[in-house]
Amino acid sequence: MNPHVAHLPCMEVFSIQDGELTLQGVPVTQLAESAGQTPFFAYDRAMIDHRVAALRATLPPEIHLHYAIKANPMPELVQHLARMVDGLDVASAGELALALETETAPADISIAGPGKQDHELARALESGVTINLESPGELERLAELANRHGRTPSVAIRINPDFTLKTSGMQMGGGPKQFGIDTEQAPAVLHRIGELSFDFRGFQIFAGSQNLNTDALITAQNGIFELFNRLADEAPAPVTLLNMGGGLGIPYFANDRPLDLDRYGEHLHRHVAACRQRFPNVQIVLELGRYLVGEAGVYVVRVIDRKVSRGQVFLVTDGGMHHHLAASGNLGQTIRRDYPIALATAMDHPAAEDVSVVGPLCTPLDVLGSRVPLPYAKPGDLIVVFQSGAYGLSASPTYFLNHPKAAELLV
Amino acid sequence: MNPHVAHLPCMEVFSIQDGELTLQGVPVTQLAESAGQTPFFAYDRAMIDHRVAALRATLPPEIHLHYAIKANPMPELVQHLARMVDGLDVASAGELALALETETAPADISIAGPGKQDHELARALESGVTINLESPGELERLAELANRHGRTPSVAIRINPDFTLKTSGMQMGGGPKQFGIDTEQAPAVLHRIGELSFDFRGFQIFAGSQNLNTDALITAQNGIFELFNRLADEAPAPVTLLNMGGGLGIPYFANDRPLDLDRYGEHLHRHVAACRQRFPNVQIVLELGRYLVGEAGVYVVRVIDRKVSRGQVFLVTDGGMHHHLAASGNLGQTIRRDYPIALATAMDHPAAEDVSVVGPLCTPLDVLGSRVPLPYAKPGDLIVVFQSGAYGLSASPTYFLNHPKAAELLV
Repeated sequence: MNPHVAHLPCMEVFSIQDGELTLQGVPVTQLAESAGQTPFFAYDRAMIDHRVAALRATLPPEIHLHYAIKANPMPELVQHLARMVDGLDVASAGELALALETETAPADISIAGPGKQDHELARALESGVTINLESPGELERLAELANRHGRTPSVAIRINPDFTLKTSGMQMGGGPKQFGIDTEQAPAVLHRIGELSFDFRGFQIFAGSQNLNTDALITAQNGIFELFNRLADEAPAPVTLLNMGGGLGIPYFANDRPLDLDRYGEHLHRHVAACRQRFPNVQIVLELGRYLVGEAGVYVVRVIDRKVSRGQVFLVTDGGMHHHLAASGNLGQTIRRDYPIALATAMDHPAAEDVSVVGPLCTPLDVLGSRVPLPYAKPGDLIVVFQSGAYGLSASPTYFLNHPKAAELLV
Repeated sequence: MNPHVAHLPCMEVFSIQDGELTLQGVPVTQLAESAGQTPFFAYDRAMIDHRVAALRATLPPEIHLHYAIKANPMPELVQHLARMVDGLDVASAGELALALETETAPADISIAGPGKQDHELARALESGVTINLESPGELERLAELANRHGRTPSVAIRINPDFTLKTSGMQMGGGPKQFGIDTEQAPAVLHRIGELSFDFRGFQIFAGSQNLNTDALITAQNGIFELFNRLADEAPAPVTLLNMGGGLGIPYFANDRPLDLDRYGEHLHRHVAACRQRFPNVQIVLELGRYLVGEAGVYVVRVIDRKVSRGQVFLVTDGGMHHHLAASGNLGQTIRRDYPIALATAMDHPAAEDVSVVGPLCTPLDVLGSRVPLPYAKPGDLIVVFQSGAYGLSASPTYFLNHPKAAELLV
């Protein structure tokens, strides 16, 4: 037995019945019937819960787990996660509205983003959520709004640190950046917050995202706590919040190894203990998006045509880059690599051939798998793309070429 | 006087009044009022008409100009173009519905796409448009549908040629491809079309897109007409259609030179004369998308914040990759380069500084301009991104982070 999925890291968590992939015991062919269509995304509630439980078991109990809605804003999934975690982080007025529909208390919701508009700041102010300030200019706009609305804003400062999370998928700190306030500028901004008598909560220090290098994440932890200690000295009021961002990656590609959560957690215990000694009332937030939901989601498409062009087999499917831009390699990747991909109804079959799995769009960018080993597949068969729970449908150009939208199921 | 836009190739066609960019004589600040918001896309009707007229004046009169809706499916713009050109090409049932709402006769509409679903083929069959077949499997599915509906399909074969358009932005022909039927497989497919007694129209031979190399386009013309002559010998009925694709590029970046349309047209005159001598009834279609609308469109965003991070100036705007993925460098580009960008109300000012123009999203991918020379700009100012008439809003992840949609105006 040499199933074609044996090498996929995600296969440790999905179960297979009679050769077919299942989510929560439901075979994908049955999910397709529930969805009423292909393509669809399906998110496995139990896998999300399992991930949250693993974090709770490994991380210091004082850590507040937040979900960053931008990773996957499906309302049902947001509602589910809101019940599992300690808070929500949003990046727009649209996401704020989603968060406020959950039972999460406003004090456990924060809004960030380098281009917050006045109407967004006003909405955040009214609802009492924590506003992560990204520039001195934004602070002054907020001051004007606070004055006009007669309300005291709860604020934190998003810091653009003077260090960078190494080998991060996307670097979001260090050097000149549009995100946050440079460490060097923080004292002046803190002073101004004191003048304005805002409710000052603390700091968000975000060093990067999608990192699989545990050593690099530990180095970033060191940097974040060291910086927090330095900045707290300048604060206009006792610091009650440290949002240390996230950055925890998931394995997408053949040689990716999952993060060593035990070692990450062990190191964090030490930092948290020291930090709580100095700041007994500080809430330490870990803000996770992709790490909570990325591995719990699959994207399922149906084969429309099987064709051979100059010796190469193409499976043309009803889904592609218009639903899953990241899997097509067009969301920030410099080198296109395949997401894990399988024939959903023949998971226990060995690979029979190398095939290219493409979408229906008239563009060579619309590729889901480039010469991937699969069992023999024919029109009507279902193909599944793993690691599709984060930055999938909501990060894709759904109107491109005006094909039907993908469905979404929380299973 | 050294205006900051002097080097932009697009500036030959836009006019400026009192330092402000105008479309059809309307200043962009006024367009923003009409749109009721920023960001917005505005498309200049006169520039589209001018482009069509230039093509008519340069190309052989027998050429049928088609508009490929996928470049920009804004309904009002499609309606306008339908009146200007001789036919429409669509890539999905959604686009077909748009095309059928215009006055274009079904015989002048064609549908292409490697993953046409049965419901799309059925709709195409019912409406009588030309179906560009992409595989032997698709032909058999169509045969079954034709039988069931009791209708005779009008078909052409999309050919995957045995040559490639060199230095094309995107290669869509040559080698193993998901698009069309390999030249080598065409005789068998043609024979089968004869057996089925379909209404056979001819061939679509599409070699690439976004090409600025006139020599390469001329070489492709040679290849297309030579291949057409070869294939026509195998046709089951007199050939009445040659769709020669498009491929005509527009200049996006600093060193791009516009295509030499005169030379392209001159060469085409010879081919068309020879072709019409052998096939007096053949309709020769040039299928253009980006070349018709790309330069006629601008994307206008408003500066929300001006911030300086470690010596670098950032203008944070209300628009970005969620409306204009291509301008952010994330639609197939391997190297990110800036689209032409300007300060809309100070077009006649010299550049004062190099700035990074970024969007509001919490991702370092959300960049519209990377250290571009602009006059001093402040919150409230309008920034314009040129060459934004094609593959803009419809090719962008509009739901990403749940910010408001961009408006669209046909001026």
